[in-house]
Amino acid sequence: MTSTTAMSGVIPPVCTPLTPEFEVDTASLTRLLDHLLDGGVDGLFILGSSSEVAFLPDAHRKVVLDTVLGHVAGQVPVLAGVIDMTAPRVLDHVRVAVEAGADGIVATAPFYTRTHPTEIAIHFRTIAAQAGIPLYAYDLPVSVHNKLGADLLLELAAEGVLAGLKDSSGDEAGFREVILGRRDRDLPSFSVLTGSELTVDSALWMGADGVVPGLGNVDPHGYVRLFRAALKGDWAAARTEQERLLRLFGLVHVGGPHMGRGSSALGAFKAALHLRGIIDHPTTALPQIPLDADEIARVGEYLADAALV
Amino acid sequence: MTSTTAMSGVIPPVCTPLTPEFEVDTASLTRLLDHLLDGGVDGLFILGSSSEVAFLPDAHRKVVLDTVLGHVAGQVPVLAGVIDMTAPRVLDHVRVAVEAGADGIVATAPFYTRTHPTEIAIHFRTIAAQAGIPLYAYDLPVSVHNKLGADLLLELAAEGVLAGLKDSSGDEAGFREVILGRRDRDLPSFSVLTGSELTVDSALWMGADGVVPGLGNVDPHGYVRLFRAALKGDWAAARTEQERLLRLFGLVHVGGPHMGRGSSALGAFKAALHLRGIIDHPTTALPQIPLDADEIARVGEYLADAALV
Amino acid sequence: MTSTTAMSGVIPPVCTPLTPEFEVDTASLTRLLDHLLDGGVDGLFILGSSSEVAFLPDAHRKVVLDTVLGHVAGQVPVLAGVIDMTAPRVLDHVRVAVEAGADGIVATAPFYTRTHPTEIAIHFRTIAAQAGIPLYAYDLPVSVHNKLGADLLLELAAEGVLAGLKDSSGDEAGFREVILGRRDRDLPSFSVLTGSELTVDSALWMGADGVVPGLGNVDPHGYVRLFRAALKGDWAAARTEQERLLRLFGLVHVGGPHMGRGSSALGAFKAALHLRGIIDHPTTALPQIPLDADEIARVGEYLADAALV
Amino acid sequence: MTSTTAMSGVIPPVCTPLTPEFEVDTASLTRLLDHLLDGGVDGLFILGSSSEVAFLPDAHRKVVLDTVLGHVAGQVPVLAGVIDMTAPRVLDHVRVAVEAGADGIVATAPFYTRTHPTEIAIHFRTIAAQAGIPLYAYDLPVSVHNKLGADLLLELAAEGVLAGLKDSSGDEAGFREVILGRRDRDLPSFSVLTGSELTVDSALWMGADGVVPGLGNVDPHGYVRLFRAALKGDWAAARTEQERLLRLFGLVHVGGPHMGRGSSALGAFKAALHLRGIIDHPTTALPQIPLDADEIARVGEYLADAALV
Repeated sequence: MTSTTAMSGVIPPVCTPLTPEFEVDTASLTRLLDHLLDGGVDGLFILGSSSEVAFLPDAHRKVVLDTVLGHVAGQVPVLAGVIDMTAPRVLDHVRVAVEAGADGIVATAPFYTRTHPTEIAIHFRTIAAQAGIPLYAYDLPVSVHNKLGADLLLELAAEGVLAGLKDSSGDEAGFREVILGRRDRDLPSFSVLTGSELTVDSALWMGADGVVPGLGNVDPHGYVRLFRAALKGDWAAARTEQERLLRLFGLVHVGGPHMGRGSSALGAFKAALHLRGIIDHPTTALPQIPLDADEIARVGEYLADAALV
Repeated sequence: MTSTTAMSGVIPPVCTPLTPEFEVDTASLTRLLDHLLDGGVDGLFILGSSSEVAFLPDAHRKVVLDTVLGHVAGQVPVLAGVIDMTAPRVLDHVRVAVEAGADGIVATAPFYTRTHPTEIAIHFRTIAAQAGIPLYAYDLPVSVHNKLGADLLLELAAEGVLAGLKDSSGDEAGFREVILGRRDRDLPSFSVLTGSELTVDSALWMGADGVVPGLGNVDPHGYVRLFRAALKGDWAAARTEQERLLRLFGLVHVGGPHMGRGSSALGAFKAALHLRGIIDHPTTALPQIPLDADEIARVGEYLADAALV
Repeated sequence: MTSTTAMSGVIPPVCTPLTPEFEVDTASLTRLLDHLLDGGVDGLFILGSSSEVAFLPDAHRKVVLDTVLGHVAGQVPVLAGVIDMTAPRVLDHVRVAVEAGADGIVATAPFYTRTHPTEIAIHFRTIAAQAGIPLYAYDLPVSVHNKLGADLLLELAAEGVLAGLKDSSGDEAGFREVILGRRDRDLPSFSVLTGSELTVDSALWMGADGVVPGLGNVDPHGYVRLFRAALKGDWAAARTEQERLLRLFGLVHVGGPHMGRGSSALGAFKAALHLRGIIDHPTTALPQIPLDADEIARVGEYLADAALV
Repeated sequence: MTSTTAMSGVIPPVCTPLTPEFEVDTASLTRLLDHLLDGGVDGLFILGSSSEVAFLPDAHRKVVLDTVLGHVAGQVPVLAGVIDMTAPRVLDHVRVAVEAGADGIVATAPFYTRTHPTEIAIHFRTIAAQAGIPLYAYDLPVSVHNKLGADLLLELAAEGVLAGLKDSSGDEAGFREVILGRRDRDLPSFSVLTGSELTVDSALWMGADGVVPGLGNVDPHGYVRLFRAALKGDWAAARTEQERLLRLFGLVHVGGPHMGRGSSALGAFKAALHLRGIIDHPTTALPQIPLDADEIARVGEYLADAALV
């Protein structure tokens, strides 16, 4: 079920461009894919949180799957989020993703319902048993309100249930425990990816295989430079690149207190892609609040400071 | 969009019986409906948290809708949960519920995504605009990780967006603020229902219209007696009934520390229905942990103490 | 250690008036005591959260103890908060309170440190063993970040460790479990007091002995009327009074988003006492933000609406 | 108020040895200081969370201050925690610490009370204005239930209010924002210390000045080797040392589910110091649960694996 080499490198969570009528803008999506591939990314993660998966009806999810897998056509592996509340619902998404040709799937622990580590294990085992393609655990406590423990992850890795981890928990000590545990248990094909996009040099230094950076939509070239510098041991260059990206990341805060932090961050990513000429509309899905003209102008300043426009 | 009289009385959130193969057990579901109607309930709420909605794939949700609406056939109003992460996904469930003939729909605030009061308002407005049947807000912070404020609810009620509230927040002061605000703003058709099943006498005393009690699956007659006593002003009888039900409610804790609190509570409700001969299997959906024989025996003791078996 | 009759009635948590130089204003404090006694309160709770105990150095706490116990001189019982992080620190406050002549002490579970139910039990046992006067548990999750369970409380009551409970958790189902458990275990002298000041009629209806209302500083007469109406079984009058007080309670929200919710609530209580001519200054302790003139004016409107000024 | 060079290096938070009667064991404390100084530490932090400050009455705090400052006698700088709920209470501890000769003080944001960023700023300004010695902010959300923002910290650093930060928040992205912000605003004397003891190589790599490791009580030599390796640019050696320390850190989990996580961690540190022959008793303060013999034996295994006994 799991591949023999761990997934690695820069694997951005692909934004989902929308038309002003809130349909998937496939032309923009295709251009975004080209922008990312041109940046040299090593894989793509579609239908994750940065893709606004929580806002996409099943029909939209399918359009994204078909558009991306059709366009990428095997140039890089494509992981597909199958985000839903529990295994029985997740499995419906799995079937669609497998049919569309995804190279792997990404699932969180159960959410909405109150859960327990033993239940989380059953959840992942149930999904893996039916998927037939590699399953990655997505640790995202800010959405799921639950932290995946290192012991649980390593046990599921050893069982062959999990092919990897995308860790967006921000808990670097727990992340390191997974990395060391993988080494101690000799699970080299278990892929350990960080979603903490502001400490990528540090995660790679600890032994992570790669990164899933939301900001990688806006500046894939930067994250690829960072990763390649680390790969060849030029850690000072990796750090300099990361610090530049950290400053650019400030654009997620342009949205005022009249909107949620998700609206601000996703709105800023899309505004940046629009300002860079990659997508046609900065539209985010309902019920998110759009950025106003001033806020978009501030996104532009961040891009200018980073020499991206 | 909203009805002229507020929904009221005892409206249990109907459990979803399952076969050992995890399919919807429609024969048991039909018997459960008869049991509830026999108890004298005033309405039914299907596809809510006590219905394990988070564990039901769309196909199962549709079976539940069709089975219940077909069998109830207008004897009492049926509200259908349309639980999903955000408005665009909720709307798919709304279409199915409307088509099946539901009398109203019940939606939470957005979850999984980080949100904001203004976004919550847009979320409910978007749903109501397309539903064409009454929309009830479901306040369930334990699942949604967000509390609906009284001001927001009353504003949406005044706009005609919301037909009512099912409050499972446990915040009785906030609940009372809604009740008084409804009176002050003269919104008599806005239905205020509590999901706090251990303080129903108190909620009715404050002015609530009704209750949505999970335990009402097990003992609908008890909740109906409680409600009718309150209705005719016999508050002492209502209190005595509530205290008996509070003791019976202890069955939700029979599950040990090796399972989540949801597994314990839903497992106990279903075990009780099984022991009472109403449903064929106490099966709960994956990845929940089933109660073991000892735990089920303890459920039986609670039923015996309450003279229900 | 525990008295034979449960503490009951209206027991306001007494505000601590301050001079503009942030010293305890004993003249104002004395007038506030007279205002409360004139209102007919049944007891006083000093050095609780509404007393700004978290902001009072030990020397100020001692001034409050001496001033209140000297002035009240046995007219009503006085409970003293001994709020600190863990038993060893709490015991220092206990000694001072006992020496000053307090009739009982009020302690929370440990805070700042991560704790456990067994540790909480040891904590209360340690305090009770040395206090020599009745010990009341203070359940205040918003400050302590921990909820006291009904089983733990009843066990400590049965042991004679706890003389009572002040429940400000807002968890009415848990509160009711304590009330029924007290009856089942025949612990009539264990006093069950609610701090949920907007549902007092309901708490008394469930069987609570009394209330510790912060708003009782501003309008003790109202809470005493509420309690006495309930006592003689005139629940409709109790409810009407509670609804009036709920509307008055809106004054706690006058403070804008530039301050914490504590600054707003305590600032409003003190502004109201100042506007009513009872205390000389509306000063709150550092680092709280004072209400501005507009916000104080809005407090005045609430008082006018309640016919208190 | 602030020194011209930033505090740096390994600054362990010194455990507070206790006698079986729960008095400060000054002889053991002195030996622990010698152990740490022998390890080559660059400073000491007394009366912090690892010192069980939440469990120490004021008299014990003073004994610790006098013992440590008398014994260390200027060999390394000593920072003293002044942990209490709000500025007015903190100031009492400040006076004692200053009188005892502490080189700096360490304070958290307000806790127990609900607070606000503007109030936190006033809190720190009030403390700094009266301290007369450098003030360090202690960011510890697990205890304080509040996260100090980078902007607030940098503003207070620029004002000269804060001399440094001890960050135990685990939020490495926020930590890095402080490090870059310090560089951008040219605040080289603002000391940035991490309390995240399992990612010290990474924190130093990002630009942190030092570390405050609880585990440094047990193995100061290890942390000093880690720091010195980083200082001379031998990052691979630093990482190897950190990975060894991460494995040793597993000892904090030996305590079973019958105790709190604090009891387990502090109990393990003290058991290790006892097994290493440095302190006379592994006693932790009430109401913490002591480790049992089996749990202590497991601590011994961790020490043996790390070649420390």
